[in-house]
Amino acid sequence: MFSYSINDQLKLALPRPLIDASALSTLIDADRDELGRWLPWVDTLRSPQDETAFLQSVLSHFAQGTSLNTVIWVGNAPAGMISFNGFHELSQSADIGYWLGRQFRGRGVMTQAVRGLCRLGFDEYALNKITIEAAVDNHTSNAVAEHAGFHLDGTLRANELLADGAHDGHVWSLLKSEF
Amino acid sequence: MFSYSINDQLKLALPRPLIDASALSTLIDADRDELGRWLPWVDTLRSPQDETAFLQSVLSHFAQGTSLNTVIWVGNAPAGMISFNGFHELSQSADIGYWLGRQFRGRGVMTQAVRGLCRLGFDEYALNKITIEAAVDNHTSNAVAEHAGFHLDGTLRANELLADGAHDGHVWSLLKSEF
Amino acid sequence: MFSYSINDQLKLALPRPLIDASALSTLIDADRDELGRWLPWVDTLRSPQDETAFLQSVLSHFAQGTSLNTVIWVGNAPAGMISFNGFHELSQSADIGYWLGRQFRGRGVMTQAVRGLCRLGFDEYALNKITIEAAVDNHTSNAVAEHAGFHLDGTLRANELLADGAHDGHVWSLLKSEF
Amino acid sequence: MFSYSINDQLKLALPRPLIDASALSTLIDADRDELGRWLPWVDTLRSPQDETAFLQSVLSHFAQGTSLNTVIWVGNAPAGMISFNGFHELSQSADIGYWLGRQFRGRGVMTQAVRGLCRLGFDEYALNKITIEAAVDNHTSNAVAEHAGFHLDGTLRANELLADGAHDGHVWSLLKSEF
Amino acid sequence: MFSYSINDQLKLALPRPLIDASALSTLIDADRDELGRWLPWVDTLRSPQDETAFLQSVLSHFAQGTSLNTVIWVGNAPAGMISFNGFHELSQSADIGYWLGRQFRGRGVMTQAVRGLCRLGFDEYALNKITIEAAVDNHTSNAVAEHAGFHLDGTLRANELLADGAHDGHVWSLLKSEF
Amino acid sequence: MFSYSINDQLKLALPRPLIDASALSTLIDADRDELGRWLPWVDTLRSPQDETAFLQSVLSHFAQGTSLNTVIWVGNAPAGMISFNGFHELSQSADIGYWLGRQFRGRGVMTQAVRGLCRLGFDEYALNKITIEAAVDNHTSNAVAEHAGFHLDGTLRANELLADGAHDGHVWSLLKSEF
Repeated sequence: MFSYSINDQLKLALPRPLIDASALSTLIDADRDELGRWLPWVDTLRSPQDETAFLQSVLSHFAQGTSLNTVIWVGNAPAGMISFNGFHELSQSADIGYWLGRQFRGRGVMTQAVRGLCRLGFDEYALNKITIEAAVDNHTSNAVAEHAGFHLDGTLRANELLADGAHDGHVWSLLKSEF
Repeated sequence: MFSYSINDQLKLALPRPLIDASALSTLIDADRDELGRWLPWVDTLRSPQDETAFLQSVLSHFAQGTSLNTVIWVGNAPAGMISFNGFHELSQSADIGYWLGRQFRGRGVMTQAVRGLCRLGFDEYALNKITIEAAVDNHTSNAVAEHAGFHLDGTLRANELLADGAHDGHVWSLLKSEF
Repeated sequence: MFSYSINDQLKLALPRPLIDASALSTLIDADRDELGRWLPWVDTLRSPQDETAFLQSVLSHFAQGTSLNTVIWVGNAPAGMISFNGFHELSQSADIGYWLGRQFRGRGVMTQAVRGLCRLGFDEYALNKITIEAAVDNHTSNAVAEHAGFHLDGTLRANELLADGAHDGHVWSLLKSEF
Repeated sequence: MFSYSINDQLKLALPRPLIDASALSTLIDADRDELGRWLPWVDTLRSPQDETAFLQSVLSHFAQGTSLNTVIWVGNAPAGMISFNGFHELSQSADIGYWLGRQFRGRGVMTQAVRGLCRLGFDEYALNKITIEAAVDNHTSNAVAEHAGFHLDGTLRANELLADGAHDGHVWSLLKSEF
Repeated sequence: MFSYSINDQLKLALPRPLIDASALSTLIDADRDELGRWLPWVDTLRSPQDETAFLQSVLSHFAQGTSLNTVIWVGNAPAGMISFNGFHELSQSADIGYWLGRQFRGRGVMTQAVRGLCRLGFDEYALNKITIEAAVDNHTSNAVAEHAGFHLDGTLRANELLADGAHDGHVWSLLKSEF
Repeated sequence: MFSYSINDQLKLALPRPLIDASALSTLIDADRDELGRWLPWVDTLRSPQDETAFLQSVLSHFAQGTSLNTVIWVGNAPAGMISFNGFHELSQSADIGYWLGRQFRGRGVMTQAVRGLCRLGFDEYALNKITIEAAVDNHTSNAVAEHAGFHLDGTLRANELLADGAHDGHVWSLLKSEF
């Protein structure tokens, strides 16, 4: 496994499609309702096979440099994923997306993972800015952005069409000069 | 030429790479400094051949449904371009980009073109929202968004890295329900 | 919708795969036996989904410049399709194919559509010649070619293998110099 | 070399791009004016490297079943090429193209090559008809079609735009039932 | 059919996917247990349709120059296949694989086919060495290599994982200078 | 950087094409004669741009699972590369290739790197065997294989055509059961 170490307990690893799919699927299955409330793709990943295909596609995007999807490892267990969903040339920026399995929530894991990915992005991907977009009523996600030191730039109207309708979205940003 | 009529004087047409490249190149060459100040791609289109290649690529994106680039016609003359630069699935939205040759500016052409493209987007592309991003100090572009009835959602920091450095960007939006 | 206007009542539009498939499928379904007698592809388009996939493929051929398939609009209704099936480099020519829904036949629509597509072909596709091939016993199709001013060049043996066997085919041509 | 035997002296072989390019280029160079008069592609093949690239592309079309280009061998010498330029699904037909180096002309080689390729086409490619198109003033090519037993179906106007202008073209056909 | 003649009774032909699949499938079906003991791919070719798809893929590899798969013809009957499975640039070598239908075994056919393919490889594919790998307990295959004049270079451990477990493999080689 | 840790001083990292190319090029340039004696590709990598393109291509092979090329890091310095050049399905094996910059040689780095890559291969790539091929007169490379615990299976004739001619090659193997 090829990984980027954040601290003694936490690392970000490139997915291994055939090996990691099962554990990630189990995490998603165990919390499908809550995750699916905010993450529309949850509904399209229904089996380890779907997950394997997804992980293969993101590896190929990593190789092309169009996105970077990593598995969050807490100790020896896969705990969720954190990603640069895309790189934006005009602003030399990338936006972060993330999710964490239920049993790994509530202990600051994601805030550390975000800070770790920001370090990687500023150091190795020549980014000038990193952004997080979160539905205004997704309190957990907004809290992660705030705790990770991001600045609230504004609120985009109808930024996400989720199962229960349109949600406005907060846009958070962290500049390289602030990190 | 396949076009979408806005009014008696104005229409949006799909580009014809071999035919339209010359006139569009002439418009860009005549105003390279002003256009290039806000549009980084201006520097990469140096000849009608570059323009032809660009128009061929955008036609293929049109066919795939990943973007929509149109030539603005004022009467019988190509006057600039207006585009949906991309379609965003999660928000059923698209962002508009545009430029106009010098001699066509100052008479409301772009405001009408934006309104026309919005109509097409809401009617035929199932959009829920259309956005415009403009550098805060690009007064012309912000004025177009405002005159076209868009709402200012917020100001994204370091939203564009232009030749003279980072510019914050206004995000304007128009909802289908408002149109 | 991006269209090419022929007259007040008639225009040719690029297909919108998700929007136009349903109406075109309905036209085909309503006249499957008669259309299928001359058009072998009718049998392969059995559903709006098939039609959508077909329209997506022809849009991509349009973008590549290898064919041009358009929807014929009579007033506000899709009435059929007319196409340059292919462009022939050695003769700078293209061959036209067409079909019309039952309720739109018998009023000269197709003759006008052919003339309109010829104008587009000579003006914008640098054609020197446009051809129509029709089975010798397809009287309607031969009448369109004749009424549109085409010249009968010859009769190719076994030019189409239809459901009821081989049919000889008339080859009609119209030169740019004649238009 | 993989070949199809016509008689003791004559066979058709699949091209070997790296091996055959040199001899074929030499034949073309030795007769560039006469060949180029009727064959527009002659002008685009200026070196053995061009020929190698061309032979590689036709091998890939052979593998896909979209055309069949073969080298004509007279004894141990490459003498020219004969090809099914394309396969036409609606008529289960293919059209033949050919050229012969100067020193191999005038002894019936091409007539035999055409008959051989027809045998292959009717036996193994499920063809119902084989056609040859020749400019009306290309007497040699028309003579080959006639001697090979083809029937003259008609004369297509402006069928080829050659260096000296438009030429009408004779269309010859041979049906499987006649072979 | 395009073929390479070995002697009056034996030739190697490029596969014709639609025509040859049936006969080859019949040969495999008639001897599935014995062939499948040594050839893992036998289990994946279960129908003429599978065989057609396989033959289409190998034709495309032939066109790209990455492998060469031929059908062995004994008189007028397809008898099996012999192939260069791949070309190895660093050693200018290729490895041969083969199988023969039951009724064609025991008369030296494969030894002659190997010698024929070696001649083609040294003459037309610029090879310096040709190799055969055979499981140590596949006596028939080892005997072919020995009779064809190959030299035993060594025994690779666990060289093939077959249905009944790992088998060591003999590596045989023939140098161009020895042929 | 995404890496696989071998010990406190040594790790294997996926290449970062834009970042690592310069250091790797410098290592190669400093020892071009000695490296090029055994590694034919050295001659094709003449600039950091060549190296960047090479690293991009191997990343894409990593994503497809067709090879695995890693940079060897000694402390904070790139020291060379070690790779699974390919994965062989029939034997569930992979062959290792490697090179080390001059100043990093002579201290057991490569033996440890080979052992580390073997661990990764047996644990995560489901390998049953790992092989190393080395020219018989490349004493350094053979010593690495021996020190890493590999078994000498045989000597393949003319296994590599290097600048000074054909070299026989030793084949070394390590089975999963031996690791």
